[in-house]
Amino acid sequence: MMKLTISKVTGKARLGVITSLGQNGEKSLEVPSCLLYTKTASPPHLTHDTLQTIEGVPPVTHVTLSTLAEHQEVLEEYKDGIGKFAGLSDSVLYCSVSDPVTPGPSGYNTIKTVSVWGSGGRIELTTQKFMSLQSALKVDWFQCLADGEVMPGGSSKKRAKKSVDRSLNFLDECLQLLAKNDVLKDKVVIGAIEGGDLLEERLRSARETAKRPVGGFLLDGFQGTAMTQETKLNLLTSVTAELPEDKPRFIHGVGRPDEILDCVECGVDLFDSSFPYEVAERGSALTFDHQYEPDPETAGGHLSPDRTPESNVLDKAELCDGEKNGEEKTKSEEPEIDQSQITSYEICLKEKRFREDFRPLLPGCTCYCCRNHSRAYVHHLLISKELLAGILLIIHNFQHYFSFFGSVRGALRDGKLHVLKEVIQRKAS
Amino acid sequence: MMKLTISKVTGKARLGVITSLGQNGEKSLEVPSCLLYTKTASPPHLTHDTLQTIEGVPPVTHVTLSTLAEHQEVLEEYKDGIGKFAGLSDSVLYCSVSDPVTPGPSGYNTIKTVSVWGSGGRIELTTQKFMSLQSALKVDWFQCLADGEVMPGGSSKKRAKKSVDRSLNFLDECLQLLAKNDVLKDKVVIGAIEGGDLLEERLRSARETAKRPVGGFLLDGFQGTAMTQETKLNLLTSVTAELPEDKPRFIHGVGRPDEILDCVECGVDLFDSSFPYEVAERGSALTFDHQYEPDPETAGGHLSPDRTPESNVLDKAELCDGEKNGEEKTKSEEPEIDQSQITSYEICLKEKRFREDFRPLLPGCTCYCCRNHSRAYVHHLLISKELLAGILLIIHNFQHYFSFFGSVRGALRDGKLHVLKEVIQRKAS
Repeated sequence: MMKLTISKVTGKARLGVITSLGQNGEKSLEVPSCLLYTKTASPPHLTHDTLQTIEGVPPVTHVTLSTLAEHQEVLEEYKDGIGKFAGLSDSVLYCSVSDPVTPGPSGYNTIKTVSVWGSGGRIELTTQKFMSLQSALKVDWFQCLADGEVMPGGSSKKRAKKSVDRSLNFLDECLQLLAKNDVLKDKVVIGAIEGGDLLEERLRSARETAKRPVGGFLLDGFQGTAMTQETKLNLLTSVTAELPEDKPRFIHGVGRPDEILDCVECGVDLFDSSFPYEVAERGSALTFDHQYEPDPETAGGHLSPDRTPESNVLDKAELCDGEKNGEEKTKSEEPEIDQSQITSYEICLKEKRFREDFRPLLPGCTCYCCRNHSRAYVHHLLISKELLAGILLIIHNFQHYFSFFGSVRGALRDGKLHVLKEVIQRKAS
Repeated sequence: MMKLTISKVTGKARLGVITSLGQNGEKSLEVPSCLLYTKTASPPHLTHDTLQTIEGVPPVTHVTLSTLAEHQEVLEEYKDGIGKFAGLSDSVLYCSVSDPVTPGPSGYNTIKTVSVWGSGGRIELTTQKFMSLQSALKVDWFQCLADGEVMPGGSSKKRAKKSVDRSLNFLDECLQLLAKNDVLKDKVVIGAIEGGDLLEERLRSARETAKRPVGGFLLDGFQGTAMTQETKLNLLTSVTAELPEDKPRFIHGVGRPDEILDCVECGVDLFDSSFPYEVAERGSALTFDHQYEPDPETAGGHLSPDRTPESNVLDKAELCDGEKNGEEKTKSEEPEIDQSQITSYEICLKEKRFREDFRPLLPGCTCYCCRNHSRAYVHHLLISKELLAGILLIIHNFQHYFSFFGSVRGALRDGKLHVLKEVIQRKAS
């Protein structure tokens, strides 16, 4: 059975390790961490060989029920579970109910069912159907069926209360079915904490869920912008205070580096990695700095919260490109870029200014793309709509994001989370 | 300087090897062969690491001017040529004017210019501009600018004559510019033979082109279905009779296995590999048999033109699936499949009958996809519209197609081309 050992607590932020994972119990996962995001049980656009070129891949892979529910018959026929079916048999698997990138429309849940959307449309899940699906999937951890539709702000107190009641009901029913199911009885159930933006409902959900024999908690419904970041953090802080220390806390759809650090400070342990995927899908590369220690070669031994020399060089060069861009004319049309989507943690390689930029995506990065290709080449692939662009960008973004989580753990270990936060927040401005 | 040595001639079919290729002259290419097809100078959807997993990749990579012309400024700025820009620096490069998959609209060529279409629209090439582009691309072989627009059947004798005259003119101008150009003077020019479906113009084009100092010949304008296969083969046979034995003959846009064998019998040496790419793009896997020798374990020592036991098993199983398919109902909608496109050399993995088919794409195949994944998994990726489907299919299709060319050479070497032809034609019925 998996076990979480917390080695250090700073405020509410936890550093630890989950051990006894995997079929033989020989795998472990340091927290805080992200899980490996997949679409339809495969890491987006990557073969396993390509995935092997990425450094720091998390040992736990995150699959989503919504993309797999329509394949139930196939998986039942296959018998060996989704891990082997998708060629992920050496990975520890966690299954969430919805995809953090495309949660699907709301308004379809009932007292007896939760609806998920696959490529073939809506699939209505009772607890019975949900558990038979899990019997076919055979993952290590799964999020329990829950009514997570409450839209904060927009929904009534009554609706929030209902989401908590229903979710607790689903949990009780699933746990009953689990006890009778030989295939599933050693699997870990992650209980979902609901309640929208109502503190009292959130607390009730947390307390009641914590009473049940779950292996961890999903802090559900914190994605999107319906709540302010302040409201979210207040709720998260209150909720995690109600949870036992020895079980991991998951959150989905929260992926920006500044948000990750905020959540870590509220006591959240596990995140998804849909953010680097979404960044790649819009043609962007993550380039944010997450070095929390001064560069010993240049900083002269004192703690410097300033940027590293490398990122300085980078920023200057970009500024310079930007200026040059204003002057020059190019024949090829500007592709559509939704600037409102571009965060300050990324550069969008579709932009014309990268046409003749022969540097790697991020100078100094050791990923496959940065070792082999230039920004100009990735720009050219994007403009030509060749899929290889998405492959190279996801390789870079995954590696950069996984390495960011390494920095989060390192900063916690070294008591430098405030330094990392400053480095990250400077970019967020 | 590259050199073609013919080791065996059967009828008009040639077996040989092109030596002294590449920067240090240490590479060679056996013929008949295909070239490695690329889109915008990258093998479709493949990183170089993924490409390395494919067996039998041809040492010559085929890039197309139409997808690169709009990047002239970038490549001039970059200075090191398209090979290094696209990370293909260890490959011998050949550049054709158009893409065999998307040739672009016709009707734009003039006496002074040829038009190509990139993602940004039409680019008009004079010989001057063409040669400056080639100076930026720095490939080993390039097809000379040519007026290849003649639509057989639909165009007049006058238009066919014009295509020959113009193309010879372009060739003379390019060869003059080449002599003065330090970057290009050691590059190999491939002369294009035009003339539509008019035998006398084709012969004139062949004779005149053969008088010029070209390194090989492109038999242009044989793609598509405007000419019957019989007309094409008659023209090809007559044209190759006019060409010197010691220079390779290229053809583009001819890719079906039966057509390849026909062309080989007319004396054509080099093909593109756009066919396996197009097959992958429509969600199909190549599964045709190209074993020209009886399986020693089962054939009892006598030459058996029958199917190998493996392909028999395969076909039976497929029939069985098809029957089963008629009975069963599935909830997910049938994806759009244009059955008119599906050749008898492939299976379309989008079809419902593969939903629960846990065999590899082609039993016995050693490609990355067949070693790791099932038809059901590829079906699932296609239905879910995950790009990985295209990646896995191109890996399989490339390896299968490259291995087919190995069989073509083997059959020529062993005097068994007629056996291979029978095996291939049985499938073509």
